Amino acid sequence: MPSPHQGLRNGETPPRVPPHHHHHFHSTVAVQKLRRFNTLILVFRFAAFCFCLTSTIFMATNSRGSNYPSWRDFEAFRFVLAANAIVALYSLAEIGVSVWEIFRGTTVLPEIVQVWFDFGHDQAFAYLLLAADAAGTALARTLGGSDTCTDSNAFCVQADISVALGYAGFVFLGLSSLLSGFRVVCFMVLGSRFHI
Amino acid sequence: MPSPHQGLRNGETPPRVPPHHHHHFHSTVAVQKLRRFNTLILVFRFAAFCFCLTSTIFMATNSRGSNYPSWRDFEAFRFVLAANAIVALYSLAEIGVSVWEIFRGTTVLPEIVQVWFDFGHDQAFAYLLLAADAAGTALARTLGGSDTCTDSNAFCVQADISVALGYAGFVFLGLSSLLSGFRVVCFMVLGSRFHI
Repeated sequence: MPSPHQGLRNGETPPRVPPHHHHHFHSTVAVQKLRRFNTLILVFRFAAFCFCLTSTIFMATNSRGSNYPSWRDFEAFRFVLAANAIVALYSLAEIGVSVWEIFRGTTVLPEIVQVWFDFGHDQAFAYLLLAADAAGTALARTLGGSDTCTDSNAFCVQADISVALGYAGFVFLGLSSLLSGFRVVCFMVLGSRFHI
Repeated sequence: MPSPHQGLRNGETPPRVPPHHHHHFHSTVAVQKLRRFNTLILVFRFAAFCFCLTSTIFMATNSRGSNYPSWRDFEAFRFVLAANAIVALYSLAEIGVSVWEIFRGTTVLPEIVQVWFDFGHDQAFAYLLLAADAAGTALARTLGGSDTCTDSNAFCVQADISVALGYAGFVFLGLSSLLSGFRVVCFMVLGSRFHI
């Protein structure tokens, strides 16, 4: 009695290795999804890089000579500069890693190491950057009412801008961290399912 | 022909649903591990609660009359107080949830909602608390060199202690977040495997 599935019985794949057909189907879709996903991460990392680099530059150029206040005199502003510079460098490295992955289809480090490396560093640096920005904000607000800002308003405005750019960098780093966390979960679920 | 499993056939569950037997075996091990895991989370949450509550009390009692500085005059210290109070309340609620789970064996909310709820709130509140503590540190260090601290040293010491306790609370909240993140991954892997 011919059934609608009869035609398939003369085909190649389904009768011999039915689970593999299913697996293969999953993989092709997964690769496409992964590529789109990596592109999204790349965009977020690029945004984080831009904001953190700009923040670093704004803070580093925030000294106008020996008669004016400098970012070097304030611990919290040094922390803001350092944290933003670190995140900018890290984002640059991760942009390279993402581009490699999109074009070559493989990760730089072994797959499982790479996903945990990305997620761990995203988390740690997000905390670092938020702490630096919060400390910078507290100092900037304290300075706001003091003589430093009435004497040299440009210094305070530039420091405020630098801290604000740092927050923008934090938002994009946080979004990257969300995606790389999702990737860790995906790889753990896929890893146990399809034995990649 | 009687088999060693014959006795079981007069029982209720195994003969009707054989896959459940395998599932049941996995579950018993999982339940024991989960219980130990939940106890560890409970310890961390209790530590976070203690530190944050103490920090809140230290900050809230940090005003000695109208002639002395008060935490109310400083934005960052108000932030420290608020963040620590929020985390203390959240930790208390989560302690209740953990105790419920350990004794009843089920979660208060549906399982998948509960693990995501815990992890999401742990993350968000960890960021909140770290930001508050960093802001508090920046303010405390700025005040350290000013007249406020030379006039009333006790105020500054008490504020420093409150901020330091806040950091201790953050460490334990971070550890809880690590465990609840692990739990999310576990439930996603188990969820797709045993269809819980």
